[in-house]
Amino acid sequence: MTDLKMAPGYLNGIRVLDLTQFEAGTSCTQVLAWLGADVAKVENTTNGDPGRRLGPKNKVDDPYFLNYNSNKRSITVNLKSPRGLEIVKEMAKKADIFMENFAPGAIERLGLGYDVLSKINPGIIYGQVKGFGEGSPYAKNLAFDMIAQACGGTMSITGEADGRPCKPGPTLGDTGTGVLMLTTILAALYKRKETGKGVHLQVAMQDAMLHYIRNSFGLSSKTGKAAPRAGAASNSGGNPPCNIYPCKGGGPNDWVYVYTSRGNPEHWPRLLEAIGRKDLIGDPRFDTREARVEHEAEIDAVITEFTSKRDKYECMRIIGAAVPSGAVRDTYELMNDPNFEERGIIQPIQHPVNGTFRMTTWPVRMNGKVVALKPSPTLGQNTDEVLKDWLGMGAEEAAKLRADKITTA
Amino acid sequence: MTDLKMAPGYLNGIRVLDLTQFEAGTSCTQVLAWLGADVAKVENTTNGDPGRRLGPKNKVDDPYFLNYNSNKRSITVNLKSPRGLEIVKEMAKKADIFMENFAPGAIERLGLGYDVLSKINPGIIYGQVKGFGEGSPYAKNLAFDMIAQACGGTMSITGEADGRPCKPGPTLGDTGTGVLMLTTILAALYKRKETGKGVHLQVAMQDAMLHYIRNSFGLSSKTGKAAPRAGAASNSGGNPPCNIYPCKGGGPNDWVYVYTSRGNPEHWPRLLEAIGRKDLIGDPRFDTREARVEHEAEIDAVITEFTSKRDKYECMRIIGAAVPSGAVRDTYELMNDPNFEERGIIQPIQHPVNGTFRMTTWPVRMNGKVVALKPSPTLGQNTDEVLKDWLGMGAEEAAKLRADKITTA
Repeated sequence: MTDLKMAPGYLNGIRVLDLTQFEAGTSCTQVLAWLGADVAKVENTTNGDPGRRLGPKNKVDDPYFLNYNSNKRSITVNLKSPRGLEIVKEMAKKADIFMENFAPGAIERLGLGYDVLSKINPGIIYGQVKGFGEGSPYAKNLAFDMIAQACGGTMSITGEADGRPCKPGPTLGDTGTGVLMLTTILAALYKRKETGKGVHLQVAMQDAMLHYIRNSFGLSSKTGKAAPRAGAASNSGGNPPCNIYPCKGGGPNDWVYVYTSRGNPEHWPRLLEAIGRKDLIGDPRFDTREARVEHEAEIDAVITEFTSKRDKYECMRIIGAAVPSGAVRDTYELMNDPNFEERGIIQPIQHPVNGTFRMTTWPVRMNGKVVALKPSPTLGQNTDEVLKDWLGMGAEEAAKLRADKITTA
Repeated sequence: MTDLKMAPGYLNGIRVLDLTQFEAGTSCTQVLAWLGADVAKVENTTNGDPGRRLGPKNKVDDPYFLNYNSNKRSITVNLKSPRGLEIVKEMAKKADIFMENFAPGAIERLGLGYDVLSKINPGIIYGQVKGFGEGSPYAKNLAFDMIAQACGGTMSITGEADGRPCKPGPTLGDTGTGVLMLTTILAALYKRKETGKGVHLQVAMQDAMLHYIRNSFGLSSKTGKAAPRAGAASNSGGNPPCNIYPCKGGGPNDWVYVYTSRGNPEHWPRLLEAIGRKDLIGDPRFDTREARVEHEAEIDAVITEFTSKRDKYECMRIIGAAVPSGAVRDTYELMNDPNFEERGIIQPIQHPVNGTFRMTTWPVRMNGKVVALKPSPTLGQNTDEVLKDWLGMGAEEAAKLRADKITTA
C-alpha cells in the first residue's frame, strides 16, 4: 500500500507563539502544527503545561498531552523573570499567530495582552479562549470543559428522557471551542495577506457550545419549550426506528443503531426485507410514519428479535446495506481497528519516553493524503533550536540563559 | 450600546459553489458565508434542499434550514437537464470553493466529480463530506448524524455509568464534521494564494468523531479497555466533586455543576467556605483527593444540602465565585437570555416568510465584533442575480432559462 501520509505544508512559514495549556487552546494550535505551521509552545521551566502531568504520580507525559501537542516544539521560559518576558516579546515580533487560554486576566497581568503585543507587532493574529464572554456576568469565572457543557446547553439535551442531564462524552467545551477559534484564525490569516493587519480574536467556551446545538434551538423556537433529552434517539422526534437495539454479547456497547429517514419512505420496507420480515411489508400497523409512531413498541420488538441473535458487526453489515445503521463502537475497538491505521487516520508514533503510542490525526484527506504525526516534544526539548530559528540567538547566549535559569533544555 | 455586529469580510471576493443539503455540508458553507464569501447555494427546482421541509406538513422553511443557510444566496437549477448541468459547470469555472455532501457516488454520477471540475478549474478547492472514508468497509453506506455518532465512538462514552449508550445531544456527526472540513478549506485557500493550485478534500463523519474523543482514547491507551460512560462526571475519573447537584425547583434541568480541579488543591477549602461549611476544612475525611474519592457519598450530601435549597442561578453565583461551577441551562433559557443578544451572539433576524427568528451567529469575536446575520434565502430567491454576478448573464437569457424550466425564481 502506498504511504498515505504527508506533511501538507499549507501553513509552512507561519510561526505560532503558543502559550496554551490543557486542551481548549492546545487543540487549536495542534491543528496549526499539523497543517505545517512552526508552533513554538512556550512552557514554564518547572513542570510545563499542567496537561503533561495529570495524575499526581505520573512521571511521564500523559496521553492527554501527547494527543494535543504532536508536531509542536517546546521552549521553556521563566515568564516571571524580566529577561524571560523580554524573550517572549521578541518572539511575538516574529510571530504570525499568538494563542493563549489562561484564566481570565492572567495574560494581561503577565504584560502580554493584546494591547501590548499588537504594538510590538501590528500584524499579529491574537487568539484567546475563555470560559465566558466579555460582557457576560460570569466573564471572570473559571471554566473547564464540563462547566461550558453545563452552561452552554449541551448537557440539557443529553441523557435518557426520564433521567438527569449527562455530559456528552466528547470534550466539546474544549476541542469544540478550539476548532472554532482555529477556523477564525485561518480566515484572518487569509485576509492578512492583503491587508497586513492583525486582529484580536476571542471566543468563550459557553458561546461556542451554541454552535453545536442549533437543531435543538430550532426545536425550542417551534415548541416554546426547552429541547428535551431523548436517550439514543433524536430529540427532534421522527418516526421509529431511530434508536439503538441490543445485540448478541450483551456488553455495555453491544448495540446497533437503526434509522429509517423521514425523507425516504422506501427505508422501512427495505429494512423489513433486510431482517427477513418481508411478511410485514404493507402491514397497516407500520405502513405510514404516523402508524409507526403509534406502534413503536411492536417495531422495537421486531427489530430486537433480529439484532439480539447477532453481534453488532453482523447487524451493521446486514442492516447497513439497506438503511442507515451503525454498530456502537467503543474507544478500544476503534483504536485497535486496523482499518483506521491502513487509512492513516490512526498512526502509531514513537515517543522518546512513552514509547509506541497510537493516536488520531487530522481526519480530513488532502488529495488522498493525511497529516503525518510527529511525537509531542519533551519539556524544553527545542529551547535552543527555537531561540536560534526565531531570534537568531547563538549557542553561547542560549547557554547563558540556561545558566541564569531563564530557560531549561 | 454600540453595535457589535459587522460583516467581517475576511473572505470577500471568494465564491463558493454550494451543492450541500441537510447539515454536515451546509454547516460548513454557512460559516464561509458568515466570514464574507459569496455562497451560491444550488438547489433543485422542485423543493430545494430537503432540510427546508423537514415535516410532511411544513409549508414554510423549517428553523433547521434557517439555522444553516443564513447569509447565503439560493439559485435553483435543474441538474437533470444538460443545460442545467452546463450552468453549474460554468459556475465551477468561476468558483474558488466547491462543497457537497450527497450520498456516496451521487455527485460523480451527476458528472460533477473532482476529476471533471478540476479539469475545468485547476484552482478549485473541492470538498466532500461522506459518512465513511474511502477504504472503509462501509464506504458506500449512507450515514446521518446518529450513525456517525454510533460508529465514531461518541455514543459509547455518553450516558449513565450503568445505562445504555446515549447520543450526545449536539449534532457532532454533522456540524462537528463540517467545521473540520471548513478549517481545511481555509488552510488550502491560504496556500492557494501562493500556488494557485486547487485540492481535493474529503472527510468522513465517522473519522471526524475521533477528533472529539481523544481524551477517551488516551484513557483507553492507559487502561487497555474501552473508555466508560460516567453520567455527568468526567469519564477519566478525578476526585469528587465533579458532578451535577440538584437545585430548588426540581425541574429536569434544575442542576448545577460543581468541580474542584485536581491541579488546584485550594479549590476544596474554597468550596467549603462558599457553601458555609468552613467547619469541614481540614476534616481528614476530605482533606486529600484520595480521601475525597473514598468519601464521595458524604461530599455529595454536603453539597446537595446547600444546592437543594437554592435555585441553580444562585448556586452558580455563589459557588462559581469560588470554584468552577455552572448551572445546567436548557435551550429555551439560553435562547431567551438577553445577555446573548446584548453581546450579539444570538440575533433576531427578519425572515420574509417565517417572520422574526432568533438565531445564533459565529461565536468568535473579531476585534470585539461578531458576524451580522442575514436571513436564509427563499428557494431560488437569487437565481437571476447569481447568474448575472457569476456568469454575466442578461435578463433575457435568464428569463428563457426559467421558461425552459431549467431554473425557477
